[in-house]
Amino acid sequence: MPGSKFELTVLGSNSAIPTANRHPSAHLLNVNERFYLIDCGEGTQIQLRKYGFKFQRIGHIFISHLHGDHFFGLIGLITTMNLLGREQPLTIHAHKELQELITYQLKVSKSWIDFKIHYNHLPTDSQIILDDGKITVQTVPLSHRIPCCGFVFREKIHHRKLLKQVIENYNIPVVLLKGIKQGDDYIAKSGKLIPNEELTESPPKSRSFAYITDTKYKEEIIPLIKEVDLLYHESTFTEEHKDRAKQTFHCTAKEAGTIAQMANVNKLLLGHYSVRYKTLDPLLLEAKSMFETSELSIEGQTYSV
Amino acid sequence: MPGSKFELTVLGSNSAIPTANRHPSAHLLNVNERFYLIDCGEGTQIQLRKYGFKFQRIGHIFISHLHGDHFFGLIGLITTMNLLGREQPLTIHAHKELQELITYQLKVSKSWIDFKIHYNHLPTDSQIILDDGKITVQTVPLSHRIPCCGFVFREKIHHRKLLKQVIENYNIPVVLLKGIKQGDDYIAKSGKLIPNEELTESPPKSRSFAYITDTKYKEEIIPLIKEVDLLYHESTFTEEHKDRAKQTFHCTAKEAGTIAQMANVNKLLLGHYSVRYKTLDPLLLEAKSMFETSELSIEGQTYSV
Repeated sequence: MPGSKFELTVLGSNSAIPTANRHPSAHLLNVNERFYLIDCGEGTQIQLRKYGFKFQRIGHIFISHLHGDHFFGLIGLITTMNLLGREQPLTIHAHKELQELITYQLKVSKSWIDFKIHYNHLPTDSQIILDDGKITVQTVPLSHRIPCCGFVFREKIHHRKLLKQVIENYNIPVVLLKGIKQGDDYIAKSGKLIPNEELTESPPKSRSFAYITDTKYKEEIIPLIKEVDLLYHESTFTEEHKDRAKQTFHCTAKEAGTIAQMANVNKLLLGHYSVRYKTLDPLLLEAKSMFETSELSIEGQTYSV
Repeated sequence: MPGSKFELTVLGSNSAIPTANRHPSAHLLNVNERFYLIDCGEGTQIQLRKYGFKFQRIGHIFISHLHGDHFFGLIGLITTMNLLGREQPLTIHAHKELQELITYQLKVSKSWIDFKIHYNHLPTDSQIILDDGKITVQTVPLSHRIPCCGFVFREKIHHRKLLKQVIENYNIPVVLLKGIKQGDDYIAKSGKLIPNEELTESPPKSRSFAYITDTKYKEEIIPLIKEVDLLYHESTFTEEHKDRAKQTFHCTAKEAGTIAQMANVNKLLLGHYSVRYKTLDPLLLEAKSMFETSELSIEGQTYSV
């Protein structure tokens, strides 16, 4: 729907080592007031509160991989949801060891969760892992030290939009409208065929957001993220530390820009910064050298898809 | 030593549910630049950074019990210490299941810690669990839903202080000075006995700090915390929610004040506040009704012992 929300709020922009101003990875996707949390580093529940989000409205949590800066905040968030009386179920999309770990953590603290948690174990290939009627989520296999998964969030293709006045003029029965929204033509009482284009207008373009972290430079992902509206791509290092990037299976900002350019995306959002960069401008400049519409992710800011 | 530091900085003042301004339990004790961390709720490493502490200087961490708001920040702190190149060992005083949990968490994320971690499993009775030459730490069995332990930190009794001018006047050999500091008298060459009181002055009073959280109201702890200089005692609720306090094995601020008064401590510091209290004055008033020198613990503030 035109004007409906499809936006990302950055809750954590740093890589492994947090600072007082830059937290580990966490991102909140708002699709028309349905909330999806992507990664959940330490302190995510506090960041959600700081920026005024009601985290009981999060229905799905996606954990890219099991390095601590991407999930150490999960157990705290879940237990707080429980303490606040959550009843609706929660789905956690993550590698399977996370389920065992959460279960073990609860056992050690003799705690329990009263609401239902569904665990959806991530596949090793690219699959649609969620279709909730509003969006689909497709996995993107990444290359990191441990199994790691990117995600592409796409609005579901909308039905065509009825041209109200034309529908009324032809006096079309209500029972046929669903089919017309899906592309049917209409045969009038006179026997004349009214083509669908005359009865409807095209739906707005389906928007899409790709979340790619952590990974070494990997061109194989390009077909999976082609022409997304917003690409979040990790840019842990600058080219000056390219050796370190290779060694740790991360990317430089220039490499993120290259991927954005090759995938012909609409906008690139950088993030997952190494603690060594006190100012982030060098990362932005590098990305822009390859792809002009690059932007830094800044905690607390919201980016429209 | 007079003028040496013995002070507590509050890093987290809330109970189970954190807010943007009140974090879960964490306290840093500075004994003359030796640092001891007491509890380590989610976000502790970020709080340490925020208030400018070098956390590589923490040698001992004490975890009162294994409810998440007291230890969910530990794994993140340890892994960051490691990423920053820590070499010196760390001792963690906690219930034994924590060791298994940390080991499991590291295994899941295929991570490792390069420095040595000593685990000291907490006893169920009151024992001295640490004597590092500067302080002793004694456990205080508490009553909570799961095994829980308070701690009393005491400066080691200092030697008596030599009166330099008197020592010189008697021309006392250096080899005898150690004994005189410990209370020996001196027999002069003339055969005259010089009593120790003439050669030395009393050491400053040994300072002490007791950390009591989480627990239901428990008078049995009083002999163990008698006359400490600073008592941190949990005050999760006000008397209005006394039923809830009983049900959850916590204390009201009035009960904390009662314990402080009965133990004849010098000062009471309140903390571990329920998220329901937007302002903390009612808690302070309640404690003061029983014990006048009560104070609220406020994050970022440092309290001299």
